[in-house]
Amino acid sequence: MILTVTPNIALDITYHIERLTPHTSTRVSDVKDRAGGKGINVARVLHSLGHESMAVGFAGGTVGAQIREDLDAAGLRYQLLPIMGQTRRSVSIVDATDATVLNEAGPEVTKHEWAALVAMVTELIKQASVLVVSGSLPPGVAADGVADLVSVAVAADTPVIADSSGDALLAATAAGPTLIKPNGPEIVAATGIDDPMAAARALMADGAGEVALSLGAEGLCLLSGEGALVAAPSRVVAGNPTGAGDAAVAALALGLAEGWGARRMVGEAVALSAAAVAHPLAGGFDPEVYREMLESVEVKER
Amino acid sequence: MILTVTPNIALDITYHIERLTPHTSTRVSDVKDRAGGKGINVARVLHSLGHESMAVGFAGGTVGAQIREDLDAAGLRYQLLPIMGQTRRSVSIVDATDATVLNEAGPEVTKHEWAALVAMVTELIKQASVLVVSGSLPPGVAADGVADLVSVAVAADTPVIADSSGDALLAATAAGPTLIKPNGPEIVAATGIDDPMAAARALMADGAGEVALSLGAEGLCLLSGEGALVAAPSRVVAGNPTGAGDAAVAALALGLAEGWGARRMVGEAVALSAAAVAHPLAGGFDPEVYREMLESVEVKER
Repeated sequence: MILTVTPNIALDITYHIERLTPHTSTRVSDVKDRAGGKGINVARVLHSLGHESMAVGFAGGTVGAQIREDLDAAGLRYQLLPIMGQTRRSVSIVDATDATVLNEAGPEVTKHEWAALVAMVTELIKQASVLVVSGSLPPGVAADGVADLVSVAVAADTPVIADSSGDALLAATAAGPTLIKPNGPEIVAATGIDDPMAAARALMADGAGEVALSLGAEGLCLLSGEGALVAAPSRVVAGNPTGAGDAAVAALALGLAEGWGARRMVGEAVALSAAAVAHPLAGGFDPEVYREMLESVEVKER
Repeated sequence: MILTVTPNIALDITYHIERLTPHTSTRVSDVKDRAGGKGINVARVLHSLGHESMAVGFAGGTVGAQIREDLDAAGLRYQLLPIMGQTRRSVSIVDATDATVLNEAGPEVTKHEWAALVAMVTELIKQASVLVVSGSLPPGVAADGVADLVSVAVAADTPVIADSSGDALLAATAAGPTLIKPNGPEIVAATGIDDPMAAARALMADGAGEVALSLGAEGLCLLSGEGALVAAPSRVVAGNPTGAGDAAVAALALGLAEGWGARRMVGEAVALSAAAVAHPLAGGFDPEVYREMLESVEVKER
């Protein structure tokens, strides 16, 4: 079982309208609600691949209740800790041009609530083959929150992937994760090093075992002690890039769980990521595009 | 007790941000949730005035649960019928310029659910001094939905105010309400008569006992069999006009309940409406502005 932690779960609300015109009122008939957050998306992809996962995080208030209902409807396994605050929402207003997104910051999580999450992960990791920690931290949790969870996995001798940014990424790196998965702008912003490849090597020196560096449409570079491999999709896939990185993390977690070599891991991650772009919703992927990409993905040493 | 029916209750979500830029992502730290809908606002104003009210409508899903929690916290009396659908949300994104509003259409209400609401109002009206029906109808309910409720009050010999628009306003008028409260653009759109005063007289000929015609900043005109009175605020009040009409309806309902004359009714309605503009949230009013306006409002025959 792959354990995915989403520290700041959100209810993703999507409004499809013709055109967003600021400072007017619009009636919305096309409304979709879905449990979201990066670790939830990873769990959805693993579930679709037929691999057992368990989604972990916080749920508070009526929005938290709706998150539980939606995960039940999707058939995902989860354990969500009740908190005093209200789980956040994220509103995406999609018109003919693009999406306008309003991300609520999220509930203030207390020290006791955070400690309870760390304790729950410490217990659940006994049954887990891999731990994935994905996404931002809620207000009230210090930047070393992700590092707390990485340390739990390190102590349990379980592989762990941290997908985070900023100071949380730096702190998580120092705790010795098996793999981190920043994209170019994230790794440059966190390290202050202009060259993403150089920044990735610096984070390996700081404690990261491997770095899966997302290069956007160019594909994915996997840096390990044995060198760097770049996998690129055979064609550009049009669609919704939200959740593509989470699909890549799902493939990387599966690779760690099943002991794949670096070449297969990076190829699967790129194929699944491209297949996620072809799917309209984050957490989903197009199985035909996945098969096509798996057969055609190019993996090269860099 | 004044009974207020809100056929399409909403959870009003307000995001305060610096500037809404379409097709970008914005993090929102200032989030406010509140049970809303025109009849709920009327009940809040009556409650603040110390008058007993009962808010009635539908509540479904987790959003419906949050509506109940918010009304409990406000200390309002209510009876909400559980429905299969999910209660709607209304998202207001307020920036330095103005508000951008996304109104979800609302849940599909079945014939059985609507019949249950009519039956509940038929029961509760026995304890009521006045019935108020405010706001739009949910999807699935025909335009004569408001008229159904007006007929309940007429049969019980209880005064009834209908605050509605379009075909629902016309159908409600034919059922013989004590008072209707359209604004200028609403009455013109519903009747196809360009002059709002002429349109108001036409609706009185069609069945409305009295018409409270809102003229925006110019004040309120109350038309009855005895003529027309216009009340105007003594100064322009800056603030949030959302809910000002509902405050006027609260005053008119109180007037019907307590047997005020036309002059006092229209004066109180304008004073409470201006005091509502001075309050940042719909359903609230500024008590000092209310007192000031009550002393200075001008009422003239027209």
